Amino acid sequence: MRPSGRDSSEMRAVTLERNVAPKAEGSCLVAFGSTRVLVTASVETSLPSWRRGQGLGWVTAEYGMLPRATGTRTRREATAGKQSGRTQEIQRLIGRSLRAVVDMAALGENQITIDCDVLEADGGTRTASITGAYVALADAIAWMSERKLVKANPLRDTVAAVSCGIYRGTPVLDLDYLEDVEAETDANFVLTGSGKFVEIQGTAEQTPFSRQELDMLMGLAEKGISELTVLQKTALEI
Amino acid sequence: MRPSGRDSSEMRAVTLERNVAPKAEGSCLVAFGSTRVLVTASVETSLPSWRRGQGLGWVTAEYGMLPRATGTRTRREATAGKQSGRTQEIQRLIGRSLRAVVDMAALGENQITIDCDVLEADGGTRTASITGAYVALADAIAWMSERKLVKANPLRDTVAAVSCGIYRGTPVLDLDYLEDVEAETDANFVLTGSGKFVEIQGTAEQTPFSRQELDMLMGLAEKGISELTVLQKTALEI
Amino acid sequence: MRPSGRDSSEMRAVTLERNVAPKAEGSCLVAFGSTRVLVTASVETSLPSWRRGQGLGWVTAEYGMLPRATGTRTRREATAGKQSGRTQEIQRLIGRSLRAVVDMAALGENQITIDCDVLEADGGTRTASITGAYVALADAIAWMSERKLVKANPLRDTVAAVSCGIYRGTPVLDLDYLEDVEAETDANFVLTGSGKFVEIQGTAEQTPFSRQELDMLMGLAEKGISELTVLQKTALEI
Amino acid sequence: MRPSGRDSSEMRAVTLERNVAPKAEGSCLVAFGSTRVLVTASVETSLPSWRRGQGLGWVTAEYGMLPRATGTRTRREATAGKQSGRTQEIQRLIGRSLRAVVDMAALGENQITIDCDVLEADGGTRTASITGAYVALADAIAWMSERKLVKANPLRDTVAAVSCGIYRGTPVLDLDYLEDVEAETDANFVLTGSGKFVEIQGTAEQTPFSRQELDMLMGLAEKGISELTVLQKTALEI
Amino acid sequence: MRPSGRDSSEMRAVTLERNVAPKAEGSCLVAFGSTRVLVTASVETSLPSWRRGQGLGWVTAEYGMLPRATGTRTRREATAGKQSGRTQEIQRLIGRSLRAVVDMAALGENQITIDCDVLEADGGTRTASITGAYVALADAIAWMSERKLVKANPLRDTVAAVSCGIYRGTPVLDLDYLEDVEAETDANFVLTGSGKFVEIQGTAEQTPFSRQELDMLMGLAEKGISELTVLQKTALEI
Amino acid sequence: MRPSGRDSSEMRAVTLERNVAPKAEGSCLVAFGSTRVLVTASVETSLPSWRRGQGLGWVTAEYGMLPRATGTRTRREATAGKQSGRTQEIQRLIGRSLRAVVDMAALGENQITIDCDVLEADGGTRTASITGAYVALADAIAWMSERKLVKANPLRDTVAAVSCGIYRGTPVLDLDYLEDVEAETDANFVLTGSGKFVEIQGTAEQTPFSRQELDMLMGLAEKGISELTVLQKTALEI
Repeated sequence: MRPSGRDSSEMRAVTLERNVAPKAEGSCLVAFGSTRVLVTASVETSLPSWRRGQGLGWVTAEYGMLPRATGTRTRREATAGKQSGRTQEIQRLIGRSLRAVVDMAALGENQITIDCDVLEADGGTRTASITGAYVALADAIAWMSERKLVKANPLRDTVAAVSCGIYRGTPVLDLDYLEDVEAETDANFVLTGSGKFVEIQGTAEQTPFSRQELDMLMGLAEKGISELTVLQKTALEI
Repeated sequence: MRPSGRDSSEMRAVTLERNVAPKAEGSCLVAFGSTRVLVTASVETSLPSWRRGQGLGWVTAEYGMLPRATGTRTRREATAGKQSGRTQEIQRLIGRSLRAVVDMAALGENQITIDCDVLEADGGTRTASITGAYVALADAIAWMSERKLVKANPLRDTVAAVSCGIYRGTPVLDLDYLEDVEAETDANFVLTGSGKFVEIQGTAEQTPFSRQELDMLMGLAEKGISELTVLQKTALEI
Repeated sequence: MRPSGRDSSEMRAVTLERNVAPKAEGSCLVAFGSTRVLVTASVETSLPSWRRGQGLGWVTAEYGMLPRATGTRTRREATAGKQSGRTQEIQRLIGRSLRAVVDMAALGENQITIDCDVLEADGGTRTASITGAYVALADAIAWMSERKLVKANPLRDTVAAVSCGIYRGTPVLDLDYLEDVEAETDANFVLTGSGKFVEIQGTAEQTPFSRQELDMLMGLAEKGISELTVLQKTALEI
Repeated sequence: MRPSGRDSSEMRAVTLERNVAPKAEGSCLVAFGSTRVLVTASVETSLPSWRRGQGLGWVTAEYGMLPRATGTRTRREATAGKQSGRTQEIQRLIGRSLRAVVDMAALGENQITIDCDVLEADGGTRTASITGAYVALADAIAWMSERKLVKANPLRDTVAAVSCGIYRGTPVLDLDYLEDVEAETDANFVLTGSGKFVEIQGTAEQTPFSRQELDMLMGLAEKGISELTVLQKTALEI
Repeated sequence: MRPSGRDSSEMRAVTLERNVAPKAEGSCLVAFGSTRVLVTASVETSLPSWRRGQGLGWVTAEYGMLPRATGTRTRREATAGKQSGRTQEIQRLIGRSLRAVVDMAALGENQITIDCDVLEADGGTRTASITGAYVALADAIAWMSERKLVKANPLRDTVAAVSCGIYRGTPVLDLDYLEDVEAETDANFVLTGSGKFVEIQGTAEQTPFSRQELDMLMGLAEKGISELTVLQKTALEI
Repeated sequence: MRPSGRDSSEMRAVTLERNVAPKAEGSCLVAFGSTRVLVTASVETSLPSWRRGQGLGWVTAEYGMLPRATGTRTRREATAGKQSGRTQEIQRLIGRSLRAVVDMAALGENQITIDCDVLEADGGTRTASITGAYVALADAIAWMSERKLVKANPLRDTVAAVSCGIYRGTPVLDLDYLEDVEAETDANFVLTGSGKFVEIQGTAEQTPFSRQELDMLMGLAEKGISELTVLQKTALEI
């Protein structure tokens, strides 16, 4: 029995609200249950110096949490003077996930920076971030397209993410915080809308898992991602 | 004629929405027109070491801006590795403003940390922050009161803030971004609900101002603060 | 009765000694009683990149305290690895105050950096810094003028600063350290020689103040500044 | 055809040399072909404060690269003033991998710090680090055991790691640098000696991969890990 | 012929002015010609944690330069966020030099921190710092003695420092800036009043020097130090 | 009697192994007894901006210690976020020592960066580093010569370093760790193969030393350096 009463293969209520940051070229407020992340996509018509002159674009991401996204206040990283290892790991993951579905030649020598700021954290902030980031990215690219900043469509596919884990011996989909702290195994899956894998990160800090268990988690992930893909397409009216 | 079409003594639409951050002891989403700040108040039953053993509490504040609160992306301070001078100046101001209405002995040896994170910036982020922070603070203190963490009411008064400036030769109330960048003089006023001054910060980077002009700005500020005080009391149902 | 025996509207003995740093283009050792600040003005014929190509100059300031300027040793900021919020707030104030009296077009694409290093701190280090900085700035501009680096005189006015506060219920001029720690209200005023306001910063961390009290502080400030202006002009022989 | 001429399921020559750092409680120089990592394990009979008083030990890891481990000189992180995101990600992975096979209660309130310093980098530095770290860890625990610092054996299993990837369309085992830069997909697998999964990290920055491809990579990983496990046991004479 | 017209074995005019920093327990403004350093000695009746409980005191030093101590403005280390390697090297040298003449048991569990801030730099700032620091240290110890904070006299000897170098082929005493930049060899000598060596640091970045040349530099240093020792004793009236 | 049983003028076993870092243009694993340092020399055909356009090259050095080079684990400087004062002092010394034997005009506008990473520390890491760095430097220059990157030979001489000290009253050559911690006086000597001094750094934190003692240390150093020079020439086959 899950704390939330959900079935083992049941996702939390997911919402994707577009255009929540009027100043950004693309934005999305994504919720996976109580987990809420504000994502913006910023277009720049210049590139970092190491990327210039190759006719290719770039997509990068940054991640942060508001201090009271969490049950007790988390120290502000700007005050601490550096981003934690966890933050860097997550933002690198978000960036890689999005780049996997972007045709960099079609994007041209432009950069899109994704910012994911967690308003409330209840497990799955990185998977919600990726799922919402795709929507913000698509809107930013539409914005570019309207202004003739890109010719062909740089988006080759959609991309979304979900976590799965083994909670009290049972594989479950989309872990919330209560499940996450107790899970023996925790895995994050990033898949394209066409069902291909972009990232898989499985961790067993407590009890190593078998290949059979991993297979079950992958099955759950495929189900969750296919639901998220429908929601993304509905939100984007595509 | 103001860019927004407002009268010279007319504030923007101000809203104060409580309980927007379910994990925080107090919270408020404050809007001054397009400027929106998410404020949380976090209660800790411990103090920084330099404050201990005197029977007095402490209230402090931190301030940040999401990267796309602004028209072009602002670099994340956590990535830059430090808070800017502007950020530190603002968060020190917010902390002082709130402490001016708190009876530290009544608060007891507890600390309340205010976090102000700007979701959208259109001028007046520090004055909106202070105005919303009072509401979040009041809710956090109510939360403490319910749990018998304080005996007497530590709040001696309300506090709110507003900016005024001289825009194209005319003193105006509550500058938005378009006015702010062009104003000859910019002043921030922090007043209590009973009409006393807590902070006044007036700056004339372009054209020094006369005492008469300052008097006119003070008059506007008193009007604006009295309106904000009504809104705060309405929001808090007091 | 003030600890120093001064009248409520009496400034401390103020001295302005020029040319104390032989290697600098302008310099001034300013004393407000025991508070002593060594100010230098450094001319550079280049600008920071964000300011270039507009035909305008720039004036900026940095502030520091020697570790034993204070009664107990203050940690060196170079060792701490960063400037405190207080330091940044003060140096931003000094920079703004000077820029208010400089015609940036007349200065041309040159930068003047003001360094204020406190040798002894007895209250009013920021007001002494501004007052002395004007003298160092004027000498640096004279140095430029002799070398034909500026054509017209970039100085539109003089500028000086003084603090006022309410000490044991009485408004007093030019607070020393003993008064400063005890004052209910502390305000810093930056005025031009012609009597206009450049900055006003009033703070009531303990007891909010009335508009009438602020008026009295402003009156004291105007008196103090007019005395400082005479001293600046005498020092500069203008 | 692989650049090295290896078969698709053939590992590079792997060596595990113990006791290479005489001052450390455990150490191992591990080579996966040209990739060489010096691993030390340091025993401390104290814990970081957040871990104390629970009767549990802790294992953590740090990772670094000598500047000329790489073909062109890599900037020293101590000079840069911080560890890169990549470094933090790797050292977090190493720590988690080892903790998965350690019984923290049996370890008691002791900490073991693993340091992995790459002498030469030719792909697979993180997998070589984990594989060698197990050997160093085992020696450090043996050292503790001889001194009666642990009662029961805290090691529940062995652990090793290997990378696999899809290189020019073919799944291959243990990518070297030439393969790594060109691979469409790169996955790191951490498995126990008993064949269970501890970590799986698969990334497709260029071309998303299918579940079938992932299955093939897992099969290769299982083969590689079983060979590494034999080498670890031989080296440790168990 | 030296730029200053001095004889090869002639020091610059040296002055040692005591009690220049009224808030410090000991202080000295030391000048070696145009080089001027403000030295303070701060007494603390506590120790850094690593030094506690051994019945021994500690003497440490910090060094800094005001931005316009130099001909062109030097960047403030507090702004840069760290002390340069040169600064750290110098302050470590000053600390070691003073500790060599202090009986740490007699000092008891107290710490004296020496701060050397260069007001004007014309070569020899580190040797002037050490020479002046001894005077400030002696005054701080006298201050402690008056307050019965030490029983026996912790000062075992005096200590002073001077530079020598080979300038245009000739060994010269007490290099000023013009000589320093051109000298083939530059050596700093720290000697006790009784003529023993505490530190010797000789560097030949351009032309390696012979043992015979080093002997000549040592002879000059002994002459210079004996003169400095007389000046120190005169200043301290001992 | 020395802890190692060596005669007072007897060096530890010294080995110089070339080409230990295949990716570097020059490299040397140097051992002075148990002290082992891995040195690499990296050639870059560009210069730092301040050095460009003068037709001169540059040689610089960086120094680090692996955490378990020492008996108890030393904190990694990359984690601490900065290099210690000791590290900076040592790497500046290594750089100066090598520059003293390099003809910068012959080197042309190229930079060679020396990295010295201590694998095991048993006293004398800086002297071993310099001695090994010369060998790595010579190999890097030979590498450049083969590629016609330099015309004339930029090496004017060899350079090596050794420490001497007064241990239990006796001057001894090449202090190991046990001697180093106990020595009254510790001096490092850097000499060219032709017997000239490049650097001399003598320190007496405990007991100041006499000129006669320094003479004896210099004699020992000359003996040690002449032995090291033979070993360097043998290793380089010159």
